[in-house]
Amino acid sequence: MEFTKITEIELPAAYDAHVHLRDGEMAQLVTPTIRQGGVSQVYVMPNLVPPITTIEQCLSYRKRLQAVEPKVEYFMSLYLHESLTPDIIREAKKAGITGVKSYPAGVTTNSSSGVLDYNVFYPIFAAMEEENMVLNLHGEVPSTPSSAPLKSPSSSASSDTAPSPPAAAAAAAITILNAEPAFLPTLLSLHQHFPNLRIVLEHCSTSAAINTVRACGPSVSGTITAHHLSLIIDDWAGDPFHFCKPVAKTPEDRDALIRAVVASDGRFFLGTDSAPHDGGKKRGEDKIAAGVFTQPYAVGYVLDALEVGVKRGVIEEASVTKEVLEGFLGKWGRKFYGIEDEKNERIVLRKGGEEIVGILTKGGLGVQVVPYRRGEKTWKVEWK
Amino acid sequence: MEFTKITEIELPAAYDAHVHLRDGEMAQLVTPTIRQGGVSQVYVMPNLVPPITTIEQCLSYRKRLQAVEPKVEYFMSLYLHESLTPDIIREAKKAGITGVKSYPAGVTTNSSSGVLDYNVFYPIFAAMEEENMVLNLHGEVPSTPSSAPLKSPSSSASSDTAPSPPAAAAAAAITILNAEPAFLPTLLSLHQHFPNLRIVLEHCSTSAAINTVRACGPSVSGTITAHHLSLIIDDWAGDPFHFCKPVAKTPEDRDALIRAVVASDGRFFLGTDSAPHDGGKKRGEDKIAAGVFTQPYAVGYVLDALEVGVKRGVIEEASVTKEVLEGFLGKWGRKFYGIEDEKNERIVLRKGGEEIVGILTKGGLGVQVVPYRRGEKTWKVEWK
Repeated sequence: MEFTKITEIELPAAYDAHVHLRDGEMAQLVTPTIRQGGVSQVYVMPNLVPPITTIEQCLSYRKRLQAVEPKVEYFMSLYLHESLTPDIIREAKKAGITGVKSYPAGVTTNSSSGVLDYNVFYPIFAAMEEENMVLNLHGEVPSTPSSAPLKSPSSSASSDTAPSPPAAAAAAAITILNAEPAFLPTLLSLHQHFPNLRIVLEHCSTSAAINTVRACGPSVSGTITAHHLSLIIDDWAGDPFHFCKPVAKTPEDRDALIRAVVASDGRFFLGTDSAPHDGGKKRGEDKIAAGVFTQPYAVGYVLDALEVGVKRGVIEEASVTKEVLEGFLGKWGRKFYGIEDEKNERIVLRKGGEEIVGILTKGGLGVQVVPYRRGEKTWKVEWK
Repeated sequence: MEFTKITEIELPAAYDAHVHLRDGEMAQLVTPTIRQGGVSQVYVMPNLVPPITTIEQCLSYRKRLQAVEPKVEYFMSLYLHESLTPDIIREAKKAGITGVKSYPAGVTTNSSSGVLDYNVFYPIFAAMEEENMVLNLHGEVPSTPSSAPLKSPSSSASSDTAPSPPAAAAAAAITILNAEPAFLPTLLSLHQHFPNLRIVLEHCSTSAAINTVRACGPSVSGTITAHHLSLIIDDWAGDPFHFCKPVAKTPEDRDALIRAVVASDGRFFLGTDSAPHDGGKKRGEDKIAAGVFTQPYAVGYVLDALEVGVKRGVIEEASVTKEVLEGFLGKWGRKFYGIEDEKNERIVLRKGGEEIVGILTKGGLGVQVVPYRRGEKTWKVEWK
């Protein structure tokens, strides 16, 4: 097929392997937009406030989501936390929970309960490996504090103090720019210790991340968001609605992500990291919440980004095959997760048929969200 | 002196070699804060809307500023523009105008009338060199458009089309991160063609900029802002009030700027680039205006940043001498500009004596500005 000439295409409904559906009113607003975006199955992030650290919380959360939109299938995750035990992991597996999400402390929204030292979780990871659960990594190292001294304390200083984090070493300070590359040795180390543990490096944002996932065995995959396929650093500088973590990086990084879609070999698949924030937290407040909201147009955004990739000469027209679209949008993610698509639903996409709303609202709800690329056109999704 | 122990210090009033005072109500609000910040003389940027491209506009603008605050001395600049001629340069010199500011098109606020191709301005620069005027460079290359094709058009394509800009070449795409380093060859080229033309590389934000200024002859200097002495990329990601152009870069770049203050050899001096924007353009709107507002606390911010630099081990305590403070805050800039400080006013600074207001307002004015580090404490300025 000549991808950029196509105006209509039928595909299996998509699997979005990384969604933030929130809770309460926001979940009421956002969850019904999953199918609008062409998605029938989702893997749900556990970073509520407080985070989901027990099986009971997790199953109860799934019930609330099912009540909002019963036509979507929800795969669930626990938040990696010191209260987890190998026993809980085994029970979680029996209870139908899919995986565990790890957030390095402080690097992204609602991640202040997150992880710094992975070694303490090795018993958890070992149990997950045995139970064939999935470990989802937010692959960023926390930034070096701005107040950190430039040099390490002199060697004559007492060694009774807590060991300094790796970020304080003599190497370049960690910022939001190198936070992902600086995490990649941790990914390699985890993979080496737990070669059969299925690991997903979430929202890959650099060519270094793509290369590192490729260098691992088949138990390691990476998700790529829709918005990282089109945004670069210039786009979020000064634009709250393009600001997310990990931040969009250079044009070269973005182009590496586009190439990873068509040369995935099944290693990379869609996880939108769609992250709704109430309008007020994106505008009008002093600090801007990190997150781009892509749920209602998820599949359309991906097709649009691939078209731009072809037109800019980043990828060949012929590389965007139906197999690539079916794979990236669902088949490869489902295969890695061992997810059946029993309903086998299909969608028809029509190019330019959908105008992205300026703001997503719903009568009776006190929250509203601005979607990515508001006011532009994208592919319209119809369910067969 | 032991700089971090000092709680009171007397200095000559400062020269701020890069200020945005705007016009109308904003000028009414901002201009009276110059002396509050410890500054008696300022070099005023011409990027009004429309920009100041004629001698008449320039002198009229100075009169309006003098009417607002007669106790400040205003040195004036023209906006580099195709309407300028060598004759106008000679007349401008006679009229007491100090220099010409060059903005690469589109890189910063109100710079859409700016410059792309410097060669066409060589006759202007030659006249400026003869007249001993100052050329002020906003040293950034415009970013590569996001839609730019990855590869150059094939060589068989017609050559009738306009030549592609240098940014479209095979090298890394230009983003706000490498825009300043990518400009530095232009600085070197201008200096080579006009070795006696006094050039200021404004708001240096990278160690590369510092090194390049040093590599030039004594006719080239650099200004450094107060806020670039403390901000890094993590600070402006998600914070409208820390977002400016050039963007704050890595911790290593910031630390190079701090070192340049104490090891200036007269080559680097204060130009705050204080850039007031009405609160509404920093909050509540979709796109955030670039600029950090530092005018009312200019000298205090610099002292604070140097103190942090000492405490973090970036610079030695002993390197922050009275000569460095007097030089960076006024003497070196005045010397480069050939500016007399006839009134010879002096200020006394008291550490922690001033609380930075949350928002700057004034009765009867319909604009308001949020200053840098609102709510924190800094040095209080008293005029002797």
